[in-house]
Amino acid sequence: MAVHPAPAFLSITDLHESVDDPALTSMTLLNELAGRYPSAVSFSAGRPFEGFYDVEDLSRHLTTFRRYLEDEVGLPAEQVRRTFFQYGRTKGFIHELIARQLEVDEGLTVDPESIVVTTGCQEAMVILLRALVRDSRDVILAAEPNYVGFIGAARVAGAPLRPVREGTGGIDLDDLERQIAAARREGLRPRACYVVPDFANPSGASMSTADRVALLALARRERILVLEDNPYSFFSADGARLPMLKSLDEHRQVIHLGSFAKSAFAGARVGYIIADQPVSPAGDRGAGPVLLADHLAKLKSMVTLNTSTVAQAVIGGYLLENGCSLKRATAREAGVYRRNLAAVLDRLTSVFPAVPGRPRDVSWNAPQGGMFVVVTLPFVADEEMLEYSASKFGVLWTPMHHFYAGTSGFQQARLSFSVLTPEEIGLGVDRLGDLVQDQRGR
Amino acid sequence: MAVHPAPAFLSITDLHESVDDPALTSMTLLNELAGRYPSAVSFSAGRPFEGFYDVEDLSRHLTTFRRYLEDEVGLPAEQVRRTFFQYGRTKGFIHELIARQLEVDEGLTVDPESIVVTTGCQEAMVILLRALVRDSRDVILAAEPNYVGFIGAARVAGAPLRPVREGTGGIDLDDLERQIAAARREGLRPRACYVVPDFANPSGASMSTADRVALLALARRERILVLEDNPYSFFSADGARLPMLKSLDEHRQVIHLGSFAKSAFAGARVGYIIADQPVSPAGDRGAGPVLLADHLAKLKSMVTLNTSTVAQAVIGGYLLENGCSLKRATAREAGVYRRNLAAVLDRLTSVFPAVPGRPRDVSWNAPQGGMFVVVTLPFVADEEMLEYSASKFGVLWTPMHHFYAGTSGFQQARLSFSVLTPEEIGLGVDRLGDLVQDQRGR
Repeated sequence: MAVHPAPAFLSITDLHESVDDPALTSMTLLNELAGRYPSAVSFSAGRPFEGFYDVEDLSRHLTTFRRYLEDEVGLPAEQVRRTFFQYGRTKGFIHELIARQLEVDEGLTVDPESIVVTTGCQEAMVILLRALVRDSRDVILAAEPNYVGFIGAARVAGAPLRPVREGTGGIDLDDLERQIAAARREGLRPRACYVVPDFANPSGASMSTADRVALLALARRERILVLEDNPYSFFSADGARLPMLKSLDEHRQVIHLGSFAKSAFAGARVGYIIADQPVSPAGDRGAGPVLLADHLAKLKSMVTLNTSTVAQAVIGGYLLENGCSLKRATAREAGVYRRNLAAVLDRLTSVFPAVPGRPRDVSWNAPQGGMFVVVTLPFVADEEMLEYSASKFGVLWTPMHHFYAGTSGFQQARLSFSVLTPEEIGLGVDRLGDLVQDQRGR
Repeated sequence: MAVHPAPAFLSITDLHESVDDPALTSMTLLNELAGRYPSAVSFSAGRPFEGFYDVEDLSRHLTTFRRYLEDEVGLPAEQVRRTFFQYGRTKGFIHELIARQLEVDEGLTVDPESIVVTTGCQEAMVILLRALVRDSRDVILAAEPNYVGFIGAARVAGAPLRPVREGTGGIDLDDLERQIAAARREGLRPRACYVVPDFANPSGASMSTADRVALLALARRERILVLEDNPYSFFSADGARLPMLKSLDEHRQVIHLGSFAKSAFAGARVGYIIADQPVSPAGDRGAGPVLLADHLAKLKSMVTLNTSTVAQAVIGGYLLENGCSLKRATAREAGVYRRNLAAVLDRLTSVFPAVPGRPRDVSWNAPQGGMFVVVTLPFVADEEMLEYSASKFGVLWTPMHHFYAGTSGFQQARLSFSVLTPEEIGLGVDRLGDLVQDQRGR
């Protein structure tokens, strides 16, 4: 190929500003560092445990799902083939199985028609945010620190986010009320609040049942929607589970975002939205209300048409083989995360012991489950420090400040432990101890 | 489940206006009509021929791709597993195979790093449009009638479209020049022009090689990009193929949008972008240029993270089993479309014969290939007429006016013939003849 001259007119300043997002640039750096220092212990990989995956499973899932279509749904061969190969129903074709899973695991009865199967939870967030922001007055509230995928979805969807304080008990309801009032005073329209009630990413925070109920009451009072994202709820340290917000939702305030990334597998890119809200038509039309799910499906058809048929079929087979119970399907992974969480907390306690009479300069939270622990350090934990940590001490972690849109969290690191062994965790925390020692000496 | 009251605050006027798009509403109606009149001959289904699909193929494709990773790429078992199951490279992992296909079928050498694998061509359009529209001055040009998926992508990405006239030889280059000048006079910045050079959907129009060359010269002169979408190029009536715009692209003016929907299968939702344009950084940074593909990948990571791994693996296996030649892979389908195109044109000629001394009141174009013929009728061919046509005469077609954003095409119908047999085509055109007869009598 000849070397072609660059078109002189293409500069980064000609592209939408979201391509220049600092959080994304940071993710790129993390990947680069992991590549450059392969022997470093990485507390930065947020991906699920992969020890139980077997490539052979995929074909079996496909076969299981095909038999379900033939025997249980009763589709003729031509329709089965069409389901696997053609453009299909925009809302997806595993909605009945998802509804069954919600019944089995959550005791929640959901009309399958209110489910939109999406290209992972990421697309779910994008179309939801796109739908809810009609004009420049609309704003979305979200606890901070916030999931980086949600921040990205908001940027690409053009949805302005307004941060709400978060404590160890999850989103701060008083601050939520204050932020709603403040937004209204500015002439803005708060439309919805995004929350991860169990073991949030990155903070690990969880909400009590009382706070969940109080959040729904607040949302009803303030006429906002609650966007619930709950990918970690099966990974509690003690096996106990609190009700999802959607299970407590008596007034259709909650739009639930579902993910199979941490249960089945992340690469499938299958998620879903439960949007059972009736939407009234414009005043001058005779038609009755339409499910929000159907409006979201229209947006989905503009983003990816339908969710990949093979991906849906694989997830469908996975659900069927596990009696439509994600609790059952993820029992082994839950055991790994439980063991690893204990290993991180134990080692932090022994590497950074309390010294009587001296204030702690390293502290951490103690999540009740999930995949993340947050450590507060006696120095700025930014990208520069991360590179130093990787090159000098062989340990990687995730700087927290990007989850605060760069306004806070400068001395915090997220430790993700989902893919590590207890031995690697021990080694990694020891190395973090060496870094702290090194910095204390400065 | 108890019947919950609707949240009183959710009205269609609270949602983004794209959920209320008339073209989408029309698509919904088409699907409804097809369901209500199952014995109608449907010239409205734009999906590919499905007679050669076999569900068993999917597992074989997965195995083929796995062997490729193991034997040809030489990945260790753990990495193979990770490729199938985990979040992965945002730009995808079948880029080498796509580059090989472009070499085999087009003689085009492309740096695999300049390829972004996407969740179908639909996502490719969304992220591209999002990237190219930085502020309210940026506009995108597109031939009209326009592909409804591109119109949808532009709506969801917030990209304003400016129509350009189209003739039987594809986009009208004089009008393109005029539209660019007019946009500039209005203070706007024309950024790119979207074209489907071969057998466009819906018009069936194709560009000559001379016009392709002239379009690139114009784009270079006017400093705009060309967005090439070419899903039908293997389906020419005479088997001959003209060069893709990307093959003629000497100055990196062309961003090519690739699709496997009409070759492998539509449900997979795998497409790609070739974006080999270097993008210069902002003035104050020391870094060198970055491939546009890498900037687009950042946007993709906000929309769907990565393209479904199983879907990519299936398409990878399909490519490998066909020697990375889509021409070879689609030879049987191309034969079906060729046969059907001839059947449509033949029957139109016999049902609507030229009567000496009387002007034609029914006319149609004669595409050189593809899946679509456009018929001009002596009456308004809108949704109401379509419903009458379905209920009274048992024939469905697609009203053309939505492809013109409701400004033209009111007496035109698109006939899609990809999934029909010659017998069905004959019957369908006969029924269309009856409808015309009925309307002539009014």
